[in-house]
Amino acid sequence: MTTQQTTTLGPDSELTEVFELAQQLRVDSVRASTSAGSGHPTSSLSAADLMAVLMTRHLRYDWQAPDNPAGDHLIFSKGHASPLLYAMFKAADAVSDKELMTTYRRFGHRLQGHPTPELPWVDVATGSLGQGIAYGVGIALAGRDLEKQPYRVWVLCGDSEMTEGSVWEALDKAGQHKLANFIAVIDVNRLGQSGPTELQWNTDTYARRVEAFGCRALVVDGHDLTAVDRALKTAADGTAPTVIVAKTVKGRGVSEVADKEGWHGKPLPSDMADRAVEELGGIRDLRVSGPRPPKAAAAAPQAGGTVELPRFDQGDEVATRVAFGKALVALGARPDVVALDAEVGNSTHSEDFKKAYPERFFQTYIAEQQMIAEAVGMAVRGYRPYATTFAAFLTRAHDFIRMAAVSDITMALCGTHSGVEIGADGPSQMGVEDLAMMRSVRGSTVLYPSDATSAAALTAAMADLDGISYLRTTRGAYPVLYGSEEAFPVGGSKTLRHGDDDRVTLIGAGVTLHECLAAAGQLADEGIAARVIDLYSVKPIDIAALTRAAQETGALVVAEDHHPEGGIGEAVLSALASANSHPAFAHLAGRNLPGSGTTGELLDAAGISRTHIAKAARRLAG
Amino acid sequence: MTTQQTTTLGPDSELTEVFELAQQLRVDSVRASTSAGSGHPTSSLSAADLMAVLMTRHLRYDWQAPDNPAGDHLIFSKGHASPLLYAMFKAADAVSDKELMTTYRRFGHRLQGHPTPELPWVDVATGSLGQGIAYGVGIALAGRDLEKQPYRVWVLCGDSEMTEGSVWEALDKAGQHKLANFIAVIDVNRLGQSGPTELQWNTDTYARRVEAFGCRALVVDGHDLTAVDRALKTAADGTAPTVIVAKTVKGRGVSEVADKEGWHGKPLPSDMADRAVEELGGIRDLRVSGPRPPKAAAAAPQAGGTVELPRFDQGDEVATRVAFGKALVALGARPDVVALDAEVGNSTHSEDFKKAYPERFFQTYIAEQQMIAEAVGMAVRGYRPYATTFAAFLTRAHDFIRMAAVSDITMALCGTHSGVEIGADGPSQMGVEDLAMMRSVRGSTVLYPSDATSAAALTAAMADLDGISYLRTTRGAYPVLYGSEEAFPVGGSKTLRHGDDDRVTLIGAGVTLHECLAAAGQLADEGIAARVIDLYSVKPIDIAALTRAAQETGALVVAEDHHPEGGIGEAVLSALASANSHPAFAHLAGRNLPGSGTTGELLDAAGISRTHIAKAARRLAG
Repeated sequence: MTTQQTTTLGPDSELTEVFELAQQLRVDSVRASTSAGSGHPTSSLSAADLMAVLMTRHLRYDWQAPDNPAGDHLIFSKGHASPLLYAMFKAADAVSDKELMTTYRRFGHRLQGHPTPELPWVDVATGSLGQGIAYGVGIALAGRDLEKQPYRVWVLCGDSEMTEGSVWEALDKAGQHKLANFIAVIDVNRLGQSGPTELQWNTDTYARRVEAFGCRALVVDGHDLTAVDRALKTAADGTAPTVIVAKTVKGRGVSEVADKEGWHGKPLPSDMADRAVEELGGIRDLRVSGPRPPKAAAAAPQAGGTVELPRFDQGDEVATRVAFGKALVALGARPDVVALDAEVGNSTHSEDFKKAYPERFFQTYIAEQQMIAEAVGMAVRGYRPYATTFAAFLTRAHDFIRMAAVSDITMALCGTHSGVEIGADGPSQMGVEDLAMMRSVRGSTVLYPSDATSAAALTAAMADLDGISYLRTTRGAYPVLYGSEEAFPVGGSKTLRHGDDDRVTLIGAGVTLHECLAAAGQLADEGIAARVIDLYSVKPIDIAALTRAAQETGALVVAEDHHPEGGIGEAVLSALASANSHPAFAHLAGRNLPGSGTTGELLDAAGISRTHIAKAARRLAG
Repeated sequence: MTTQQTTTLGPDSELTEVFELAQQLRVDSVRASTSAGSGHPTSSLSAADLMAVLMTRHLRYDWQAPDNPAGDHLIFSKGHASPLLYAMFKAADAVSDKELMTTYRRFGHRLQGHPTPELPWVDVATGSLGQGIAYGVGIALAGRDLEKQPYRVWVLCGDSEMTEGSVWEALDKAGQHKLANFIAVIDVNRLGQSGPTELQWNTDTYARRVEAFGCRALVVDGHDLTAVDRALKTAADGTAPTVIVAKTVKGRGVSEVADKEGWHGKPLPSDMADRAVEELGGIRDLRVSGPRPPKAAAAAPQAGGTVELPRFDQGDEVATRVAFGKALVALGARPDVVALDAEVGNSTHSEDFKKAYPERFFQTYIAEQQMIAEAVGMAVRGYRPYATTFAAFLTRAHDFIRMAAVSDITMALCGTHSGVEIGADGPSQMGVEDLAMMRSVRGSTVLYPSDATSAAALTAAMADLDGISYLRTTRGAYPVLYGSEEAFPVGGSKTLRHGDDDRVTLIGAGVTLHECLAAAGQLADEGIAARVIDLYSVKPIDIAALTRAAQETGALVVAEDHHPEGGIGEAVLSALASANSHPAFAHLAGRNLPGSGTTGELLDAAGISRTHIAKAARRLAG
C-alpha cells in the first residue's frame, strides 16, 4: 500500500477534503484493530464522518496543549470505538502511526481497548455504556458555572447505550441547567452488540425523547457531511444543550460488513482488512489542525480563606452527619471545594453548604448516578467534589464509582444513615453493604468516624487525599469523645481505653464504638479489663495498633453495623493476616433482615449491642 | 373523637362516599404516623384521593386471598407513603385499627416504615425510590407473557423519583412491550424531601416524557374524584401502558401543612394531629370491598421435562460462560426458568436460551437495573429468573440487588468476564469488585466455578436455592477438570491435589485455580508438595476443608482475580477465624489498575499468576 503525502486540513478545508479525512479515520480504525487482533472497527466506521467534520471545523482544541483551560472537551461515551478515537489522535499528530499500529490493546501501552485518562486527550475512562453524557454534563457545568471558561463539551454516544437510565438522568440535567455548552452526538447505527437496537433507525423517537428532556434535537444523516457540518455549527451556537441524532450505517464504507449483523467487536481478518482499505481508497496521511481554543478566562482564584473547623464540646451529643455538614461549610473557604446532593441534603447536612456557598452547590435531585458523574466531571476540572447521599443509596451509583476509579478520579463521597442504627425507617434506608462496596474500590480511602470531632477532622482530611475517599456517617447523636486539638491521621486509630491487664480488645466504629465503650464499662465492673479501639480509618487500617492489641490482649472483638462480608471485621482480619498476627477473634455484624424499631432494639437484634459485645468478650477472655 | 358506624363501599358507591373514604385514609395516615412518632403523613395525604378511587372502583383484588393468581397488583413505589398504604389495608379489613395504631414502625412488627413482602399484600419492598415502576413492568410482563393471567399492575409513584434514570428504563420497556396491563400513577405533589421538585407542577413535561417513551399519558387533577375515576377507567381499558400524571397537593386536606415546605417525613405533633383529624371530618370506619378479580386462567403446567446437563470431556478447553449457557438451555426443560439479558447475550451465552426458549427470554437491552427489576418481578410471580451480564456491569444494578434481598427474592444472577483475565478490552470491562458486592448481599450464595463441568452443575444448583445466588464465570477457555458424574454441593470445595507431606495449600477459583494447579506442578518439581483446593463455593464456604488444610499443611495461599477487599481471601480469613484456625497466610489479589494485554501478562502484572503463587508458597513453606 502506498501512503499519500502529508496534507494538513483546517477549519477552511473543503468538505471534499474532510471526506478524505473520514476515509483515513476508517482506514486507520480497520488497520489498528486488525493489527491488534481485537477491537471494534464497525462501531468506528459509522461515526467517522461525524468525527472528521467535528475535529476539522468545530472542535476548538489544541492537541499539543490539552490542558488549555479554554479548549473544548471530547468524550467518547462509546469507548469501544477507540480505534476511531485513536485514529483521530493520529490525524491530530498526537500519536504516531507506529504507536497506533504496534501498541493498540497491547500490554503496558496507553492505547487501551477502551480509552482512559492515561492519555492526555482523554478526560474520563469510558467503556461502561451510558456514562459519557453524564460526565459531559458535569464538565459542562464546571466550565460554565465554576471556571467560567468558554469551552464546549462534545460527547459521542452509541445508540445502544440510550437505553441506560443514566443517559436520561443526564439529559434532564443538561436541560434543567440550560447547558448551552453541552453537545451530544448519537451515532444511530442501528446495530448493537448482539443484534438490532431497540429503536433501530427510529431517529424521530430519539429526538422526541431528547426534546421532552429539555434539550434541542437535531436529526441528520450522519454520512452527509454538509448536513453534519450544519448541525454541528448549530449545536455550537451557544443557545441550548443539543443532541444531534445522526442516522448512520455500522461498518459504513466497507461493503462486506456495512449494516451487517455479527460484526460487533470483531476485527476484520487481514484479507478482509486489505480489501477494506482498498475500498476506502488506501492509506492516507492527512493531518488536522482544527479551530484553536478561544482566549481563556482569567483563572479563578485558587488561594482560599482559612479553613476553621467547627469545635464540639466533649460529652455533647452530636450526630456525625451534623459535624460533616459543618465541616463542609468550613471547607467552603477553599474555592476548589464543591458539594453535590441527590435531594436529601436536609438529612445528610450537605444542605448546610448550599446555604453558605450556593454557587458551588449542585442539586441533582434523586439521581445518584448523575450526582457521582457530575462530581467526576468537576474533579476532571480540578475541583474537590463532596457528593453525599444515604449510604444505602450510594449503591445506586456503584458502576459510576467503579469507573471513576478507572479514571483515577479524586473525589470525596459521604454516605449517611449507615446501618440498622437509623431505626424506624427500616431496611430499605439502611446502609449495610456500603463498606464492602467502598473498600473494594481501587485506591479508595474509607473513613468511619464515631464522634463529631473526628467526623469534622476526617471531612477536612478528605480534601487532601488522592483517589476516592468515603466517609460513613451515622444518623443519631452520640457523645463527642475528643477534644478539638486531637489529630486523626488517615490510617490511624484511637485507643480509648487501655491498661496493662487488658484481656480483650473491643473494636468498633460509628455507633458500635459507643457500644464497645459501654460494654467495656460493664466488663470492668465484672473485673475484666477491656481495651477499646476507635477504628475510624477502615482503609488504610492501623495494622500496628491492631497487632499490638492482639499481642497484648490476645483477643479481639469486632462489632460493626454492616453485613459481615467486606466490612470492618474482614478489614481487621486482613490486617492481622498481613502481620501474621493470630489473636482469638469474634466478629459481630448484622446477619438477618432488620425491620423497624428503635436503635437499641435493632442493635440488639443484629447482635451488635453492648450486651452482645460484652458477651463475646467474656467468652474470649474467659 | 367519635367513630362512625361501619359502612362498606364497593364499585357502585357514589364518589361522594369515596371522598369519605379518602378522608378516612387521610385521618388514619395522620393518626398512624403521629402515634408512631415518625413517618410521612403529608406524602400520604396527597395520594389519598387517587387510592380511594382506585381501591373502591378499579383494583380487582381479593384482600382475603392475596394469592389469587388473577388479582391485580399494587406497588407503592413511594414506599414512604406507607401510612396511606396501611390505612388502605385497614379500610380493606386486612389489618385492624389497633394494629395500625400500636405497631406501625415498631420493633418486631410487620407494618414497617417502608412496606416489605412480610405483608401478604405487598409484592416487593420499596423505599429506594425509582424502583416500583421497574418491578411493576416485570410483574406485568410475567402476567401477560408467562402466566397469561388477566391481572393489571398498578404502581403509585412520587414525583421526586421521576428523576431516577431507572424510571425511564422501565417506561421504555412498558412502551416497547406495549404492556397494556401496566398502569403507573404519578402523585405530582410538587414538594420533595428538601424542597420543591425539579419539575414542580409541570405535568405537561411529565406527560411529554411519558409519551416519548411509548406510554399513554393522562393528566388529571388528582383531587377531582370524577376525573381520577375516568382516568383510572381509561388506564385499565387494556389498550396501552398508561401513566396517569396527577396534579396533587402535598398535605392535602390539612391546612396547616398543605403545600408547605418543611413537612416531608415528619409526623404531626399530637395537637396538630388532633386539629387535622377534626378538619378532615373525624375518625371514620368505612370498609371497602372493591371489584373482585376475574376468573383466573388455568395454571401453566409446572411439571417440566427432565433437565439433562451438558457433559464435557476432561481436558477439553471450555469457557465456564459457555458451560453456563448450555446448562441454562438444559434448565429450560423446567417451565419456571426464565432468562434475562442486557444485550450482551452473545458474550454471556444467555443467548443460547433465547434460541431454545424465545418465549421465556427477556431482552432489556443495555439497562441492567431494568434487567434485575424484571427478574424480581418474575420471581414475585413464582418464576426462577437467570439474569446475566458482565460481572462489572452488575454493579450498575447494585441498589436493585440490595433491595431484592430486602424483598426476600429468589433469583439467579450470572456475571461473566470476571477479573483481569479478560485481556485486551481493559479495566472498564473487568469485574474486580463483584465478589465483594455479591457476598455482602444478605442471604446470598456466591459460586465461582473453574471448569465447565462444575459451571454446569452449579448453574443447575442455583435453580433450587433460596435467595439471591450468583455465579461468576470466566471469559477464556480452560481445561475441563471434572468428570460429569462429579457432584458440587453448595458450600463444598474440591481438593484437587493432596498428599501426606503437603507443606502448603493453594486456594483458587476460576482462572486462579488453573494457575494454582500450574504452580503446584512447579513446586512439586522443586520438592515442595502443595495441596490445591478449588473453592467453587465462596459463600457458603467449606470451613471444614479449609481448617483441615490449615491444620495439615500449616500455610494457605489464596489467589483471586478480584480486588483484595471482600473477595475470596477475606472469605477464607472469615472462615478460618470462625473456626479459630490460624495458618500462615498469603493473599494474592489485584491491587493496581490493569490495562490491556493478554491474560498471561495481566495475571502476572496483578500478582496472581502461577509464578506469584509459587513464590508465595515457597515463602510460606520455606
